[in-house]
Amino acid sequence: MLHYSCGAFNDSMSNGLYSFTNPAFVSFAGYSTAAVLKMFGIAAYTIGQRFRTKTFATPEDDVYKQLVSSLLGSESGLDGGSGARGRGRDCMNAVVERVRGNHLNDLENIIPFVLIGLFYVGTQPKYDCALWHYRLFLLSRLVHTIAYQVPLPQPTRTLSWLIGYATTISMALRVFKIIIY
Amino acid sequence: MLHYSCGAFNDSMSNGLYSFTNPAFVSFAGYSTAAVLKMFGIAAYTIGQRFRTKTFATPEDDVYKQLVSSLLGSESGLDGGSGARGRGRDCMNAVVERVRGNHLNDLENIIPFVLIGLFYVGTQPKYDCALWHYRLFLLSRLVHTIAYQVPLPQPTRTLSWLIGYATTISMALRVFKIIIY
Amino acid sequence: MLHYSCGAFNDSMSNGLYSFTNPAFVSFAGYSTAAVLKMFGIAAYTIGQRFRTKTFATPEDDVYKQLVSSLLGSESGLDGGSGARGRGRDCMNAVVERVRGNHLNDLENIIPFVLIGLFYVGTQPKYDCALWHYRLFLLSRLVHTIAYQVPLPQPTRTLSWLIGYATTISMALRVFKIIIY
Repeated sequence: MLHYSCGAFNDSMSNGLYSFTNPAFVSFAGYSTAAVLKMFGIAAYTIGQRFRTKTFATPEDDVYKQLVSSLLGSESGLDGGSGARGRGRDCMNAVVERVRGNHLNDLENIIPFVLIGLFYVGTQPKYDCALWHYRLFLLSRLVHTIAYQVPLPQPTRTLSWLIGYATTISMALRVFKIIIY
Repeated sequence: MLHYSCGAFNDSMSNGLYSFTNPAFVSFAGYSTAAVLKMFGIAAYTIGQRFRTKTFATPEDDVYKQLVSSLLGSESGLDGGSGARGRGRDCMNAVVERVRGNHLNDLENIIPFVLIGLFYVGTQPKYDCALWHYRLFLLSRLVHTIAYQVPLPQPTRTLSWLIGYATTISMALRVFKIIIY
Repeated sequence: MLHYSCGAFNDSMSNGLYSFTNPAFVSFAGYSTAAVLKMFGIAAYTIGQRFRTKTFATPEDDVYKQLVSSLLGSESGLDGGSGARGRGRDCMNAVVERVRGNHLNDLENIIPFVLIGLFYVGTQPKYDCALWHYRLFLLSRLVHTIAYQVPLPQPTRTLSWLIGYATTISMALRVFKIIIY
């Protein structure tokens, strides 16, 4: 604690697996942040698609629908088909459901990657090996998003999901291996 | 390793960015835990709304519906409109869908905040700057929840979501900046 | 920084709460990784149920439906009842919705456990106490999954969920206690 209060803050704090002096942690932080921002991108894209198709989730969002209509001067276009399904809310537009499915899939895969990756960094993996895990995962999620939204013919989406899934499992297995031995 | 086994456990362990001797980490831990508990609050609120509207997710939950009915001595009230939509399950009640949408939005925003925040703490941000990021984020999510559940007129909900979203992106940009330079 | 560049990498890096020299962190890493992998198991199970009931999420997945049909040489079986609900897509099969609900519940509970647990480890809890938190949580989520998928009569599922929920809150309360005092 002494040298902590002596102005050597940075030095005493920066020695550790979980610090920006450890290249494996720096890479992990970068790729994880990029993957989470990719997920944030889908959130923004969802809003774009909601406006484009005038498909909103709650009654108070109807002000947005009126806004879009008054700006475009028309009720036509890619309207979410309100009422057609007798559900009261026009909240099941296929375009919007596609982005939402993509977002949920990101949550189900990117978050576990970051969490298991935090433990994986602690196992002191070889730098190259770790880096390729991160690269492969981020690439697989980018391909997955494109395959989901274009959409590309299957099994592109399934395979890209599988690669990210397998990458995370590979990291998890190393965590178990280090714990057990 | 020597001093680790010499009883100096606390001292050797508590020097680091990720420890409760680093005020930036302590604040982050507090605000993150509060944000996650807020999300847990929505989960509890969902159960309350399910009972109030007698809208349950699966057939085995029907014992709860019978329980509510026998307690209240009536089949009337805010019933989920079972069968009315011909979907077999009365699982799409608007009140319950509203809480569920809120919960999902929390997942999509609070979890990324905590994950990116973990890396952000590692970049050794100025304490004041970090603290204001955490405060703004937590406040924005509280306002978002209130705006979603009351509900308040738009764009209250959209704006409160946007502030939390921008806060997380601001933290992510600092992580990238530190990694690149 | 000196000894960091002197080949004593492992030693200087492995002293800390968040390292594999801290038994409480090792246990936490193991149980957390196991819980996240359990969630990954549900993802794989979802795919299995989609194939079994021929219920796919998007039009491009129809190639899989044709594949299943040609392999089984029949259109009968547990078909998702396409068109019966007039929603165009047969994406609301009860069996698949059950697995999806389970997956979402895992996201809502397992991720918060890992995040709050990361801070909890930093509070230096008694090893035994920490270990029982982790064990109880993992066990409760395993019982929850079985109760959800069999399905077992209620309140098995509700109680198992409640135990995991309470375990995470107990860890959060310790984080707050350490921060405040």
